Amino acid sequence: MSATFPPLREELQGVEPYGAPQLSLEQVPVQLNVNENPYGPSPEAAADIARAVGEAAVRLNRYPDREFTALREGLAAYLNTSGGSGITPAMVWAANGSNEVMLQLLQAFGGPGRCALSFAPTYSMYPEYARDAMTEWVTGHRAEDFALDLDAARALVLERRPSVVLLPSPNNPTGTALPPEAVTVLCEAAASYEPGGLVVVDEAYGEFRRTGTPSALELLPRHRNLVVSRTMSKAFALAGARLGYLAADPAICDAIRVVRLPYHLSAVTQATALAALRHAPELLGRVEELRAERDRTVEWLRGRGHEVADSDANFVLFGRFADRHAVWQGLVDRGVLIRETGPDGWLRVSIGTPAEMAAFRDALTDVMEETG
Amino acid sequence: MSATFPPLREELQGVEPYGAPQLSLEQVPVQLNVNENPYGPSPEAAADIARAVGEAAVRLNRYPDREFTALREGLAAYLNTSGGSGITPAMVWAANGSNEVMLQLLQAFGGPGRCALSFAPTYSMYPEYARDAMTEWVTGHRAEDFALDLDAARALVLERRPSVVLLPSPNNPTGTALPPEAVTVLCEAAASYEPGGLVVVDEAYGEFRRTGTPSALELLPRHRNLVVSRTMSKAFALAGARLGYLAADPAICDAIRVVRLPYHLSAVTQATALAALRHAPELLGRVEELRAERDRTVEWLRGRGHEVADSDANFVLFGRFADRHAVWQGLVDRGVLIRETGPDGWLRVSIGTPAEMAAFRDALTDVMEETG
Repeated sequence: MSATFPPLREELQGVEPYGAPQLSLEQVPVQLNVNENPYGPSPEAAADIARAVGEAAVRLNRYPDREFTALREGLAAYLNTSGGSGITPAMVWAANGSNEVMLQLLQAFGGPGRCALSFAPTYSMYPEYARDAMTEWVTGHRAEDFALDLDAARALVLERRPSVVLLPSPNNPTGTALPPEAVTVLCEAAASYEPGGLVVVDEAYGEFRRTGTPSALELLPRHRNLVVSRTMSKAFALAGARLGYLAADPAICDAIRVVRLPYHLSAVTQATALAALRHAPELLGRVEELRAERDRTVEWLRGRGHEVADSDANFVLFGRFADRHAVWQGLVDRGVLIRETGPDGWLRVSIGTPAEMAAFRDALTDVMEETG
Repeated sequence: MSATFPPLREELQGVEPYGAPQLSLEQVPVQLNVNENPYGPSPEAAADIARAVGEAAVRLNRYPDREFTALREGLAAYLNTSGGSGITPAMVWAANGSNEVMLQLLQAFGGPGRCALSFAPTYSMYPEYARDAMTEWVTGHRAEDFALDLDAARALVLERRPSVVLLPSPNNPTGTALPPEAVTVLCEAAASYEPGGLVVVDEAYGEFRRTGTPSALELLPRHRNLVVSRTMSKAFALAGARLGYLAADPAICDAIRVVRLPYHLSAVTQATALAALRHAPELLGRVEELRAERDRTVEWLRGRGHEVADSDANFVLFGRFADRHAVWQGLVDRGVLIRETGPDGWLRVSIGTPAEMAAFRDALTDVMEETG
């Protein structure tokens, strides 16, 4: 009998599965830890989703449309109202969450002997996607204010020649948006070597960007190696439905078809996402409130003397604390769950309802008085 | 500018995406090509699925239960009525279709420097999963009657020391079930070297097995390196919902958590599968009819002088034809779509309704008269 059980791949041994701590609502009633939209679909939207799924359900014995044609049409039409123009269904790809989109990109364009690159601090899942696609992970570093140092970033891309550059904008967990010139410089750098690299701008939180912050969708016509990803989890308030998508050159979407698992998007997921798109004005209607609440939160934290990163997202990174874990725990003890993530000394709070943010402010005030 | 675009991984260049030809119902009204269950959920089951999704929909702004606890409980309870006993929720894992289950197994237990093994002719997607998990693919061969030559199979496992052995039972596209002694011999072989290998018995069509053919679930207590996978696509008539699952040692399920994408099973998928499990007696109620129709089809084909592989599945492999493509095309021309797959000279027909099978028999009779 082999002594090793189970025979997990060497590099995975001892690795803890990814996941934010999940505490129940009974334990911590105010949950501001995973950047969810605090507003659920209206009863009307929920009923429409149920109706659409009910229609699909009578045919569930059949495989779904492998090419999810109607959904690609719906997503393309939406993107053309959200920073994009001229985006066609052939330029759209979707999967079960942005994370599956990223994994598919790395499976198609990464792999052994290739590398993917991002700039820390950034989303902690990226290196895990790379690991799962057996792709070397290279980390550059952001400046003190979490912006990219463009010269250094360009030099690193030219030196390491990544197949995929992952650039969240706004960045998670810092909230920092990427200026268009950064996208252009890195797209040009990644197109200057063989066989070239893709630049993936992850706009999971793109709809929350501040007025004046452009979407990288605008740059798609200029760079054929640019990929812009989005999700329905955040602005569309549909985290539970798991629908991520991207816009890119049709040849990129077509290449992903080689590695996608056949029928990866269920008929139920397609029906749900299409119904949600029909309710886009309602579902997106809360984005404006959340942006305003975000800006108020930044101001309040700064007013209290905290350091706060500029945010184009539905969350705010603030600090710095000598013992951030103590602050996090103090908040949990007062019924408010935020996220202990990002560089040491910082904490991240997701933007909730006005009542939830008031609870957060009260709890933080209390904790600071106690520990200060 | 790089001349290569898009910069697809070398081994994927020129590869066509997997997929059975999809012809519309207008083109070919009788579709017996992808082993779907011809019977959709009843209006009552569809309504219950819609109701469950409607309830989940009002909370879709929140991420789903990452551990899909209720679903694991439901699947464990079902397996204990379908060949298993003592299966606990911790022994169950699920994903978006069996194909995601297989990919996750290969991501966790395969990878560069490791290999996976099966015996041809077998399911044509297996090598693609291995490729996507950067795992070397090794092919043994089945005997003339599509059964495993156990001595040769054991020798190949001991020689190549695979991390994962993939054994469909019944096999696709031949319909051949695996005797329990084959599972035992290969589990023991795969446990005899370091770090050991998993033996994955893919029972996607397990519920259609003939009376007297046991499920590998019975062997779980004896082999901790045994994994038995199932799907809701076939017997449960839920191909559109994409729900595959497995039963194995809890340590294997736990290891998969390291490579699964967080929240890979949407709240909508979980609600749909749970509702379907509540309707299991109805959904599975057609299995008996399909088994009988399968046996009648085998008999009829043999009666017409065709060679037919014994089938424990909801499809039948028959031949042999000097020009199978001509027979396939002749059937398509007569409105019947079957699958040109398996060893040269053979064709596979999925079991449909009695009316669909009558159409198949008429069309085949016609084609044989014309070409014979």
